[in-house]
Amino acid sequence: MTYCIGIKTNEGLVFASDSRTNAGLDNVNIYSKMMTHDVGDRTIVIVTSGNLGTSQAVFKSIEKDLKSSSGIMNLNTCSDFEQIASYVGSLNIEHSAPQGINTDNVLLGSTFIVGGQIKGQHHELYLVYPQGNYIRPADSKPYLVIGEVKYGKPILDRVIKPTVSIGDASRCALISMDSTLKSDLTVGPPIDFAVLKKDADKLSTLECLNVSDDNYAKVCNQWSEGIFKVFDSFPRFDWEK
Amino acid sequence: MTYCIGIKTNEGLVFASDSRTNAGLDNVNIYSKMMTHDVGDRTIVIVTSGNLGTSQAVFKSIEKDLKSSSGIMNLNTCSDFEQIASYVGSLNIEHSAPQGINTDNVLLGSTFIVGGQIKGQHHELYLVYPQGNYIRPADSKPYLVIGEVKYGKPILDRVIKPTVSIGDASRCALISMDSTLKSDLTVGPPIDFAVLKKDADKLSTLECLNVSDDNYAKVCNQWSEGIFKVFDSFPRFDWEK
Repeated sequence: MTYCIGIKTNEGLVFASDSRTNAGLDNVNIYSKMMTHDVGDRTIVIVTSGNLGTSQAVFKSIEKDLKSSSGIMNLNTCSDFEQIASYVGSLNIEHSAPQGINTDNVLLGSTFIVGGQIKGQHHELYLVYPQGNYIRPADSKPYLVIGEVKYGKPILDRVIKPTVSIGDASRCALISMDSTLKSDLTVGPPIDFAVLKKDADKLSTLECLNVSDDNYAKVCNQWSEGIFKVFDSFPRFDWEK
Repeated sequence: MTYCIGIKTNEGLVFASDSRTNAGLDNVNIYSKMMTHDVGDRTIVIVTSGNLGTSQAVFKSIEKDLKSSSGIMNLNTCSDFEQIASYVGSLNIEHSAPQGINTDNVLLGSTFIVGGQIKGQHHELYLVYPQGNYIRPADSKPYLVIGEVKYGKPILDRVIKPTVSIGDASRCALISMDSTLKSDLTVGPPIDFAVLKKDADKLSTLECLNVSDDNYAKVCNQWSEGIFKVFDSFPRFDWEK
């Protein structure tokens, strides 16, 4: 499996993705699931979960289309993020049913979180389904998760709202990721981590974090310690003497 | 679905179970999934997830066997908790394939967490599978969860160890439950909550908690506030100006 997060706050966007791929527990590998595109008037981040063959084929197609001189649609020619989501969706459909595959028996779909900003437009976040259609997150809970989504959801549900700072949203994403990789063997480091502040020309940070790296370890260790401080501050039960 | 927790620390045992049952999202009901038996030399708590018909039938059988005068095995005649786990497992198998059911098409299994203490023996915790076999939790991570287990696992993984106090284990169980019912509609209140201190004659507490009840709300509200305090104490990222 996989775990990817996209968060949209008033201050900007946060993305995180793990990099474990597995075809069975005895066939584990490392593969980045994040693609970034930072050219001209636009910064785009895409993360993916699902069938690795399809995800890789979609990323390759996106790169190929960018280099094409035939005037076909690509990340640079899309006029807004809805068109970008639709474009990724159409590539997803194309590659999830490659020639020769018996689509009655095999499902090769992938899921994508696509976000970023085009100059002069709002910063945007979309989830693209294996069926090629797409949604935006709710205004009140402005985050999207794909893959092994359950372990890391409670902390997102408690912390993420539109007004949370981009720093807190980033720390929350790392904690949500850390909770998932501590509880599930199919999600693993390193963590690709990208932050785009609203109306910024470039990504504020684009890192590939190992669990021992300072920016990751500081947050996650302090979170573990903080939990115990909260536990120490709890009122006691009557029966607890 | 369902979410049930059993925790075994050096100081005793903690049990919690939700009470939402659903056959589809439009057919929701409330049913307690906890059974307690506190007679003579033994205190026993059983919580269950899975097929409600099977779970109810097992609970009914346990009660019927207790009243039987034919000398058959029951919760009072089992000599230790392994025998109790085996007894619950055999009832589980019996009722998960009732006469007339086509077992090729339908799986009606339930899962149980069984724990407690018989005077003069150690306090014990077992998980009974739909197949009737059973396990004990690992010594290093002494908890068991059944049902919708993923949302509430990270907090258990971070907090529960053999040396944690029975009070902290109880608060951790309530937070784990609260995280799950906030993130998943198929898990709902009220929460049955039982604590058995090691070598105690009786349960320290047996409560049916609603989210507005003091003992529940205090812990969960303070947890939510505590999270934000931890977030305030985090070091800032370099790019976060």
